[in-house]
This record gives sequence, C-alpha cells and structure tokens, in this order.
Amino acid sequence: MSYETILYDVEDGILTITLNRPEKLNAFTAAMMNELIDAFDRADADDAVRAVIVTGAGRAFCAGADLSAGGKTFDYEARGDRPDKQGVPLLPDGQPDLGHESVRDGGGRVSLRIFECLKPVIAAVNGPAVGVGVTMQLPMDIRLASENARFGFVFARRGITPEACSSWFLPRIVGVSKALEWTYTGRVFPAQEALAGGLVSAVHAPDALLPAARALAREIADNAAPVSVALTRQMIWRMTGADHPMEAHKVDSRAIWARGRAEDAKEGVTAFLEKRPAGFRNRVSTDMPAFFPWWTPRDYE
Amino acid sequence: MSYETILYDVEDGILTITLNRPEKLNAFTAAMMNELIDAFDRADADDAVRAVIVTGAGRAFCAGADLSAGGKTFDYEARGDRPDKQGVPLLPDGQPDLGHESVRDGGGRVSLRIFECLKPVIAAVNGPAVGVGVTMQLPMDIRLASENARFGFVFARRGITPEACSSWFLPRIVGVSKALEWTYTGRVFPAQEALAGGLVSAVHAPDALLPAARALAREIADNAAPVSVALTRQMIWRMTGADHPMEAHKVDSRAIWARGRAEDAKEGVTAFLEKRPAGFRNRVSTDMPAFFPWWTPRDYE
Amino acid sequence: MSYETILYDVEDGILTITLNRPEKLNAFTAAMMNELIDAFDRADADDAVRAVIVTGAGRAFCAGADLSAGGKTFDYEARGDRPDKQGVPLLPDGQPDLGHESVRDGGGRVSLRIFECLKPVIAAVNGPAVGVGVTMQLPMDIRLASENARFGFVFARRGITPEACSSWFLPRIVGVSKALEWTYTGRVFPAQEALAGGLVSAVHAPDALLPAARALAREIADNAAPVSVALTRQMIWRMTGADHPMEAHKVDSRAIWARGRAEDAKEGVTAFLEKRPAGFRNRVSTDMPAFFPWWTPRDYE
Repeated sequence: MSYETILYDVEDGILTITLNRPEKLNAFTAAMMNELIDAFDRADADDAVRAVIVTGAGRAFCAGADLSAGGKTFDYEARGDRPDKQGVPLLPDGQPDLGHESVRDGGGRVSLRIFECLKPVIAAVNGPAVGVGVTMQLPMDIRLASENARFGFVFARRGITPEACSSWFLPRIVGVSKALEWTYTGRVFPAQEALAGGLVSAVHAPDALLPAARALAREIADNAAPVSVALTRQMIWRMTGADHPMEAHKVDSRAIWARGRAEDAKEGVTAFLEKRPAGFRNRVSTDMPAFFPWWTPRDYE
Repeated sequence: MSYETILYDVEDGILTITLNRPEKLNAFTAAMMNELIDAFDRADADDAVRAVIVTGAGRAFCAGADLSAGGKTFDYEARGDRPDKQGVPLLPDGQPDLGHESVRDGGGRVSLRIFECLKPVIAAVNGPAVGVGVTMQLPMDIRLASENARFGFVFARRGITPEACSSWFLPRIVGVSKALEWTYTGRVFPAQEALAGGLVSAVHAPDALLPAARALAREIADNAAPVSVALTRQMIWRMTGADHPMEAHKVDSRAIWARGRAEDAKEGVTAFLEKRPAGFRNRVSTDMPAFFPWWTPRDYE
Repeated sequence: MSYETILYDVEDGILTITLNRPEKLNAFTAAMMNELIDAFDRADADDAVRAVIVTGAGRAFCAGADLSAGGKTFDYEARGDRPDKQGVPLLPDGQPDLGHESVRDGGGRVSLRIFECLKPVIAAVNGPAVGVGVTMQLPMDIRLASENARFGFVFARRGITPEACSSWFLPRIVGVSKALEWTYTGRVFPAQEALAGGLVSAVHAPDALLPAARALAREIADNAAPVSVALTRQMIWRMTGADHPMEAHKVDSRAIWARGRAEDAKEGVTAFLEKRPAGFRNRVSTDMPAFFPWWTPRDYE
C-alpha cells in the first residue's frame, strides 16, 4: 500500500512518517487525515515497528488546514469537495444534529487515533507547524524541534476554535495558563518559546533534529520490552484523566501480575542480574495480556 | 452603576478592574465579593470588553480577608455584621447543614464567577497578594507580576484552610508539589519565586507592569475573534477536568462546524489569504453557537 | 514496636523514616511494604508528628524490588516465599481473577497509604532510587535530592510495567511527556535531570540534604496549624482528580465554616494581628471537622 500525502518508512525498528506535500507546506487535507489514521493502524499491527517518528518533507512540518477553498474552507456544507462532510440530519428545531458522524472534526479523528497508539510517538518538528499542524502533535509523546520550527495555535485569528482535542491535550502538556495565552493570541512563536513553555523537550540545529529523534527512538527500541511499552503508553495517557490513584492501582496490579509471570519479565530480570542486554521475545501482536484493553471505547455522540 | 470597593474602567476594548481600598491594602470584604461578581457579569454582557485586567490600587494587590473583626473574622455566626452568612439550619444531629447556601465561601463565589467568564482575564499583580488576594487570581488566565509583588497562601498560619477553589486551581497551574509546599508553609514569597514555580508568567519593573498587561490584552483584542476567544476559554478550562479526549472531540466538532460556516471564519481565512488584518463582526452577546453552553451548571449542595 | 526493614524516629515534631537494608541498597520487600504502611498509620495517629521525612540508610535510597528470587521475582505463583500473593481464584474461563485481593501490587499499597496521609511527607533522596524506589516517592509531597541521587523508571527494561500508581502520580508531577520519556527508555538519570524535569524541587550536596529536609519540615511544624495542614493535604491531592472547581468549593466552604469558628482560627488571626507566633492547640487526633472525610473510600476490585 502506498500513500499520496505521506511517506511511510520502516528502518531498523523505527517507523518514520513524513507529511509529504512539500509544495503546499504539507497542508492538512481529508486524504492526509485518512492516510495518517491508516498509517497508525499499520504501525500498531506491525511488530517490527518499535517506535514512530513523525516529521515533514521540505521546509515545513505542516502549515495547517489546506486553505485552497478560501473563505469556504471550514464551511463543509458549502464545499462540494468533501462528501465525507455531507448529510448532517436536521433536528426538529431545524438545527443540524451535531452528534452526527459527519460533523466530526478531522484533526480530532487523527488525535484520537494517535491517543490509542501502542508504540511511542516522537514528533520531529522541522519547520513551521500551525493550526492542525501543531495540534496533531499534542497526542504524540515527545516533541523535538528544529531551530527552524515555529508554532501557532492560530484558530482565533481565523474565526474558528482550537480542534484536534487540543483543549484536552494542550493544558496537560504546557499548563492551562500557557495554553490560554497561545490560543487567545494566535501568535506564531519560535522554537525557543516552545521550549520555555514546555511544548517541546529540546531544540536542535536543523541537521541534528532527525538524528536526535532517531537516537531517542533507538534508546527505547534497544532497551524496552515492546509489550511493556504498549501498556505503559496507555496507562500513563489514560490515568491523566482518572480521578483517583486507585484506578491506576487496579491496572498496575493486573499488569504486574500478568507480565510478571511472562517470558519478558524472566528475561528482563535475568539479563539485568547477568549484566547483559535483554532479548525480549513477547510481541504486541500476540502477547498483550487478557485484561487489555481495560477500558470501554468512547463513542462520538 | 458605580462601585465602592473596586474601579471599573473600559478603554479601547480593555476593561481594567482595580481593587480599590488602598488604605486597607485592598483587603477583601463581602462588598468586594459582590462587586467583583457584578463586574464580571457586566464584562461578559458588554461586547466592547475584549479583555479584562485585574490590578490593585496603591501599593498592594490585595492583603487578603479584612481582619478588622479580629479573632472572630472567620466565625460567621459570631459576627453580627455578615447577614449573608446567617441562618444555617441544623441537621437532626445538631450539626449545621454545611450544604446550606449561606455557608458558601466568598472567595469561591468569586473564583467560580471568573471561571465562567467569556473574556480573557489577566492579573497584573502590583504588590502583596495574600490569602484570598492570591487565590482569587488562580481562575484568571495569565498572571503578570511587578518586582514588588509578594505572594502568600497563608491559610494554615491563620488556622484555616485554602479556599476560593484554590485546591482545584493551584495544582493545575504550578503542579501538586509546589502547591503543597506553598500551602503547608504559608510562607510569603517574592515575585521571582512565583516565576520560578510557574505561578506568574513574567516579572516586570513596577512601571512596566500595567503596560505589559495592556500589551498582552491588546494582542488578543486586535487579532482574535471574540466568539472564538469565548469558546476557547471555556473549552480549555473545562477540559482540564475531563477524563478523556473524546469529550474535547465532541465540543471541537460542534464548534468547528458551527463557527466554520460563520461570518468570522470566512473573514478570518480571507483576511489571512489577503495578508490584511481581519475585521471580525460576530459578537459574544448575539453569536454564540446554539450548542453553547454544552455543560450542565454545577450546583452547590 | 520495632521494625526490621525501616527505622522510625520522632524528634522535635519530625518523624524520620529510614529505609534500612543498607547491605541490599534498601531493596523493597513484602516486609518493608507492611512496615511502611504501619509507620504511616502510626504517624497519622501521633499528634507529636507534625511532618515526615523519608530517606535511605547507607549509599542508596532504594534500589527497587529485591531481585534475590531472580527471574521468578515477579512471578508470584511460582515463588513459594510470598504467601500473601497466593490463592488467586480462577474465573470460569480459566483466567486468574485479577480483582482478587492477593493480586494487589505491593508498591501501590504503599502509595495509596501515603496518599491518605494527614501529615506532610518529604522525600530526602540520598542516593539511587530505582523502580519502586522512585515510584514510592511520587505520593510524597516534596522531593529533595542529593547530588548522589539517581532515578530510574526501569520497568520496561525488566519486562514489566510501572506500578505503585505511578501512571497516576508521575504525569501530575512532571507532565505527561517527561513521564513517558522516562518510563519508555527506562534510563537511569542523575539528580540534575530530575531537577530539570520537575521530579525534585532542589538538589543539595550530600551533607546538606537532611538539613534541608529538616529545615522545610521545621518551617511547616513551627508555623502551620496541624488540622489545617491535614485538611490541605487531602484537599489538594484529591482535587487534582476532580472534574470541576465546584467540587473544591463544596469542601472549601465546609472547611472554612468549620475551622473558622475553631480555636485555631481565633488564635491564628489574633497572633498575626499581635505580631507574635501562633500557638495552635487543635489536634488531628481529636479536632478534625465532622465532614471529614468527605469522600467515599475507594475499593480495589
């Protein structure tokens, strides 16, 4: 399978997804939404993928929604080119039924898919990242930036609102005050402001960005048990929304019980005691514990 | 309408609320509580208000509760001067019914009103801010401090507890560890410690404080669509309490759908493409989308 | 009562709990779990304890789970030496009932006990703190580190997962991105990285660590009303999981009402006005307000 708007390359355990409309500064389209969701489905199903890097082709990371429809860009009923956005039923009061599937925000569909991912996801932000170009990064685990990166939560300057679940993710990453400052002003700001505000973990020279992302992916792929990583990802992201540590205790207890008797734990402890690298054989495709997933899927409604 | 304990000035889209009992270091009273709540009601109803700055007259921001009742200050039944605090019914076991309306903490009534606000709120902390003088700042969006500012969560030193919903707000702003350190010790600390701990976003020379607050308010008022800002404020604050990003996705989808077809979105995208400033015409008083508010109001009980 | 794996010393209002298996780098055992839980029970019941410091004997804080059972360490059914971990009933499908009490993670039992504590808890991290050696610190309120401290969330390198409710606590302390980076890589990192990431509040020379922890404990014990501190601890930790500030307002209102009429509030305000130290006489053992606890205990299930 090949994609039109992204590149999908697996090398030595690391998947690199490259947003690939460089002539359009990798602007986000419905096709890109569908391809990103498909790419994360593939990544989760492929045990050869131990970590994921997302970056952009050319000089931008992603310039945000493709604005080639001009003032009609976000008026989906007025656009003839988005059949996926048509057919919203009307309620008895004549208002559109906003619970209808076709109303769903495209950036949010990508964010929710990344939220469910079972592999670590690292954003390598090579250049400008604006609108959905930055909000799609928020459910990724770690963001590294090039000195050339710029960021903008520009929604209020376009007359719309933050999307891609960014109102949930952004304050969990940068705190509520910085989240509000950036979304109110819509200011486009440089990598150093993103670093100071906690949006990115590090800023690198342009040539050093992908090597740094790969080194971090490598550190995980070379040392961590894949089933442990998959469970850890879902435990930590989901517990940020739990109201009491008992919710974590229930999952921890099941996880330690189930994985503690597994091949990986015997190997992990033995290798440590023998001062040698561990060779983990359990796989995400076949060895996730019976209690996984422990949550009920959330529906859009 | 004029106030006795605060000043209310709107100039060029920016409302400045000044705590105005300078001879008492702007100590908080029942009258100030009522006037602050009223001022935020007015601000929300007035489309000419695009951002709100809160500051203090004279050398203090707010010295906390007015202690002129001495040791009886927080013993509302023993005070004859707080009729709003009388009449708590007794339960069958002889204990007061703490679910009764008159038990409600005054600082919390102010905090909850600011939480509901539809305009950006910037605290310009010109001097000492102690007790409710600092907890009332926490539901404001951004805090800027003068070098003369000092902060103290002094409740445990007075034998009472943090109030004004600060147990909810403070850890979301500064993290749980710093929140506990400041409330346990009751220490009064300088602006630089507030900056290092994340309580304030910047520290300015005294003369530069209000200009900095106004410049930030200006940046928002000059660039952002008011309806977008109002929605953004409620989305971000409320999603800090949501358990799953799907809650954001439901609101995002409705917001992008409703606002994407609105005048403001057409103007915002068109102005951007034409490289000119946008002139947003939608108003908070008339153009909030039909799905707003999307939440059920919380009762005190 | 004396302990085998920890020391318990109260001096001048400050309890110091010392993990005390220095020849094993204070590795965590079932006995240590039980003794820590008992020690926090004693601390809460003893009004002479105004603050708690937790540190390690010898060169380590805690090296994590005792691995002397080798590859069987986390395989509780295969180990004959953990009777507390036996007897998990099977469900009709032949899977173990992971809701059974004996499945409960030991680190989590300690973390949940510390979460319930009514006294401030300060970790003085004197040396390596790995696995449960660091996750047990997360429900403590403030972490101070020696320059000799090292930290490692090494679970994925051992083939297991984070435990001790760390998926709930860690992102609330260091943010979700740093929590994921440390748990994915399993990297052992120095005190300065812990400081930069927000895991510890300060780094001290080895000889200055315990004096710094004692000075902070002293600042609380000398100034804060014990009942105020106990209520503050539970208010702040629990409200980090509440979905709306109204939940805080309900507790604040009850707390200010109940404590505002108490002896401590009269003394606290009067002492402040008289510019003298307060002498608080209310005690945690006898003077917690009638509405405490305001929550329903959470069961493991």
